[in-house]
Amino acid sequence: MKTLNLTRHKRPGRLSLLTLALLLSWPAAAQELAQNAPVVSPELADGNAVTFRIQAPNATEVKLTGNWMPYAPDGNGGFAQQMTALAKGENNVWSVTVASMEPELYAYAFMVDGVRTLDPANKNIVRDGRFSTASVLYVPGDASDLYWAKTGPKGSVQAVWYDSPTLGLTRRMFVYTPPGYEKTQASYPVLYLLHGGGGDEEAWPSLGTAANILDNLINAGKAKPMLVVMTNGNPDQAAAFTVSPPLEANAGVGGMANMMFEKSLVQDVIPYIETNYRVATGKENRALTGLSMGGLQTMNTTFENPGLFDYIGVMSMGFADLSRFGINIDNSKREAQIKALKAAAPKVYWIACGKDDFLIESVVTMRAKLDELDFPYVYRESPGGHTWTNWRIYLSEFAPMLFR
Amino acid sequence: MKTLNLTRHKRPGRLSLLTLALLLSWPAAAQELAQNAPVVSPELADGNAVTFRIQAPNATEVKLTGNWMPYAPDGNGGFAQQMTALAKGENNVWSVTVASMEPELYAYAFMVDGVRTLDPANKNIVRDGRFSTASVLYVPGDASDLYWAKTGPKGSVQAVWYDSPTLGLTRRMFVYTPPGYEKTQASYPVLYLLHGGGGDEEAWPSLGTAANILDNLINAGKAKPMLVVMTNGNPDQAAAFTVSPPLEANAGVGGMANMMFEKSLVQDVIPYIETNYRVATGKENRALTGLSMGGLQTMNTTFENPGLFDYIGVMSMGFADLSRFGINIDNSKREAQIKALKAAAPKVYWIACGKDDFLIESVVTMRAKLDELDFPYVYRESPGGHTWTNWRIYLSEFAPMLFR
Repeated sequence: MKTLNLTRHKRPGRLSLLTLALLLSWPAAAQELAQNAPVVSPELADGNAVTFRIQAPNATEVKLTGNWMPYAPDGNGGFAQQMTALAKGENNVWSVTVASMEPELYAYAFMVDGVRTLDPANKNIVRDGRFSTASVLYVPGDASDLYWAKTGPKGSVQAVWYDSPTLGLTRRMFVYTPPGYEKTQASYPVLYLLHGGGGDEEAWPSLGTAANILDNLINAGKAKPMLVVMTNGNPDQAAAFTVSPPLEANAGVGGMANMMFEKSLVQDVIPYIETNYRVATGKENRALTGLSMGGLQTMNTTFENPGLFDYIGVMSMGFADLSRFGINIDNSKREAQIKALKAAAPKVYWIACGKDDFLIESVVTMRAKLDELDFPYVYRESPGGHTWTNWRIYLSEFAPMLFR
Repeated sequence: MKTLNLTRHKRPGRLSLLTLALLLSWPAAAQELAQNAPVVSPELADGNAVTFRIQAPNATEVKLTGNWMPYAPDGNGGFAQQMTALAKGENNVWSVTVASMEPELYAYAFMVDGVRTLDPANKNIVRDGRFSTASVLYVPGDASDLYWAKTGPKGSVQAVWYDSPTLGLTRRMFVYTPPGYEKTQASYPVLYLLHGGGGDEEAWPSLGTAANILDNLINAGKAKPMLVVMTNGNPDQAAAFTVSPPLEANAGVGGMANMMFEKSLVQDVIPYIETNYRVATGKENRALTGLSMGGLQTMNTTFENPGLFDYIGVMSMGFADLSRFGINIDNSKREAQIKALKAAAPKVYWIACGKDDFLIESVVTMRAKLDELDFPYVYRESPGGHTWTNWRIYLSEFAPMLFR
C-alpha cells in the first residue's frame, strides 16, 4: 500500500534526527512528542482513503468534523454538522478511515468528549478570520491541483501597508504580482479580491490559496497575468489581529452596512495600487470580486461607481435582507443603480452561489431584479454551500474570464 | 476592572452581528459557537493577570502548558514541563488565572485529559515548523512592544520564489524591505536571518515577528534601514509544507551537516537579492545571523567565506558535538577557519545564548577556542533557554549593531 504522510514534509531518516530537531524546537513540542510520537495523522492511502488518528487515553467519545460533511440548521438557531465517530484502538489511539475522499483542500478537527481539538499530529493549521481554526488536509488530484505550489514560474505575494485617509488608518493588504512582473516593463491589469464577514486580509492568501491558483492558471495559459489585491474588508481594523493590536473602536466606521470600506477601496486602495505598482488603468483593466460580505461590498462598490470596473463577480451573496441581524442595507436604490451600471456596460457580470448556500434566496431575488431590468450577467450555480471550497473554485473560474 | 479581550479584535456590538458573521463563516465555526459561545480566553486584567478558560464537560483533568513555564529533562530522554491545573466552574468551564505575567508574546496550549488542545476560544494560532502548534497570547508592555505593528511607517514583507541551481529547486523565501524603500533611490544593506531545525521560511515572519521588530527599531532610530531575507534552511524543501507538496527526497542534499544550504545561500540567495533588489553590496553591507541550526549554518557560511559578511551573529549554538544524533559536524577545521575569519576582521562577531539553553556547553567550548586564538567577539548571555522569546530579543539587540 502506497502511503503518503501529509503531516510531515518527509519522514525523518533517523529517529535521532527527529529527537534533535525537537530539542531545537520549543518546550511544548517536547511535551507533545512524549505523548504522541507514534501517531500519524492524517494518512493518505491508495484510493484516497484517509485515516485520521488521535491519542486520547481518557476520552469516552471522539468524533471527526470536517468541511466535507453536510450540515443544516439544527432547529435551535445554530447549525449541526454530521460527524464521524472514531474507534479506540491500541495505545489509546482513536482512528477512523474515510474512504475515497475527493481531491480537495479540507479543513477538519476532532471533537474529544465535546472539546474541539485540532489534530495534534498535523502541524498544517489554518485560521478562518476571527471565528474558526482547523487542521488542513490536502488530497492531491485534478480538483486540488490548482491549490499547490507546483513547478513553473511563480508570482510573489507582498504584505504592504497603505494610508487610508478615508478610515483614518494605516492598513495592511496583500498584493500578488504575477510571474515575470519583475522582469518585464509591461503594465498589468488588477483583480481586487475581497474576503467575507469575520475574515481579514490573511484569508485569501491562506485559506483561499490565491497565489497558487493564479500561478497555476497563468502558467497553464488559462488566465492573463494580473495583479491580485487582497484587502482587509473590516473598516475598523488596521490589519489582522495576528500582527496588530486591538484598536479602540473607530466611531462611525465600524460595521458592514456603512459603506466605509467601499469608499476606502475606491479612494485609498485603487490609487495606492495604481501609483505604486506597474499597472494598467481604466475600467478595462480593473476587476472586483468578493464572497459573502465581500460580495455585498462588490455590489455596493460597483453600483456606486458604475464606470470603475469592467469585470465584476459576486460570490455567495445577493439582495439580502439582513435587518434581523441589525444590518440595514439600503436596497431601495438597487433599481436605479442597476440601470446606471447597465448603461456603463461592464464586460463581465458574474454571479456564483452554491445551491445549498443559506443565502441562495437572496441570489434568486437579485437575479429576478436583474432579469426584470434586462441586465446581462452570467450565473454559475455550484454544488455545496457557503464554503471556502466553493470560493476557491469560483476564483479559479472567474480569473480566466478577465481582461480578455 | 479593565479587561481586554485578546482573542477578538473587538467585541461585537450586538450578538446578532456575531451570529451573522458566523453564518458567513464555515460550518465548523457554527459547530463551535454552539458549544463555546460564553467562553472568553485568554482574558487580560489589571496587573497583567491572565485568565485562561476552556469548556470541557467530560474532562477529569485540564492543565495549562505555556512557554513561560520552566522545563527540564524528565530522566526518560524527554522533557517535562511544569503545568498549571485548571479548576472546573459553572457551565463546565475550566479556568485558571496566572498573576502578573510579564509583557511578552507567549505560546500556550491546554492538556485536556492528556490531549494537547489549542485554546478553542482564541483564534490567534501559530505553527513552529514541523513540530508544534500553539495558541498565541500577547501581554502588552515595554518588553513586547516591539512585536506589535504600531503606528508609524511600515516596511513590506514579500514571499518570493528564486531559482536554486545548487539545490535543483525553485525555493520560497520572505524579503522584508524597510519603510521608505519604494520611495527612495537609496541602496540598502541586507541582513540574512536563518531559522532553526524543524522550522522553515515562515518561522521568522510569524513566530519571530521580524517585520514588526524591524519597523519599530527603524522608526525609533535604533536600527538602520535594511532588508531582511528569511530563507528556508532545509536543503530538501522547496517551501513550507503549507504551500508546497512534499517533494521526493533529493538524494544528497538533505540533512543539517552536508553544507548544501550554506552553499545555496552563497551561490543562489545572495546573488538573487543583489540582482533583484536595490541593495548595497560588499561585506560591509551584509549581515548573517541564525538560531540553533541556523547558528550552525551561520558559522559554517562565514567560516567558509571569511570575506563575505562584516556582521555575524550566532544564536543558541556553539561548537556542538551532534554525533549522537547522527549529525557529524567537521569541527577539525575550526581552528584554521577561525584564523582565516580573524584575518578578514568582521566588524561584529556576536554570540548569544540563554543560560539555561541545553546547548550552552557548546557555546562554552566555542568561546574557549575563540579566546585561545584571540578572536574578538561580543558575548551576550540571557536568562532562559532555547526559545523564541530569546530569539526575538536577540534580533532586537543584533539589528541595532549593524551597518554602523
